[in-house]
Amino acid sequence: MMTKKKGFWSSLFGTDDNNSGGSANLATERLKVIVASENRLNNRLTVDRIEKMKREILEVVNKYVNGVQIDDVNINHRSEDSLDVLEMNINLPEHKK
Amino acid sequence: MMTKKKGFWSSLFGTDDNNSGGSANLATERLKVIVASENRLNNRLTVDRIEKMKREILEVVNKYVNGVQIDDVNINHRSEDSLDVLEMNINLPEHKK
Repeated sequence: MMTKKKGFWSSLFGTDDNNSGGSANLATERLKVIVASENRLNNRLTVDRIEKMKREILEVVNKYVNGVQIDDVNINHRSEDSLDVLEMNINLPEHKK
Repeated sequence: MMTKKKGFWSSLFGTDDNNSGGSANLATERLKVIVASENRLNNRLTVDRIEKMKREILEVVNKYVNGVQIDDVNINHRSEDSLDVLEMNINLPEHKK
């Protein structure tokens, strides 16, 4: 079972070794937040609440990493098989040493 | 690319069709929340802080998803390839309309 999942996250992030030629991404670090549910998330999360949640998550991230803007967060909502998936990608600003 | 991911969530949830004999779960709705980062975050945040940030993000999500009780939550932390994944599984009480 575990082996089945192996590498899935890497493929989501596109960080597989054979992929590392994509140098455009080298400077950016990403954080991914995923909410998945068997039933419609709409019952529990309205568009309004998602927007508020997004801002609050951003505040948390900003406490730890400076300079993250609301535009650095993008959200997509999709259905897959019988699951409802809300995916949030946060691009972190370039790290200044 | 998309086809590669197809069914992954179902396998996480164990809701594949050939699995649906598990009637014990029918009343419970499950929710999975995942915060994932690339290991390169370690350059700017200590492992400790990354973990704290992720827990805080999970708390925010909990606040916005209706009906989550803190007792319904279990959290596990694992590393996969170059990724650091904090995963939260939530058993939701039956949704009351």
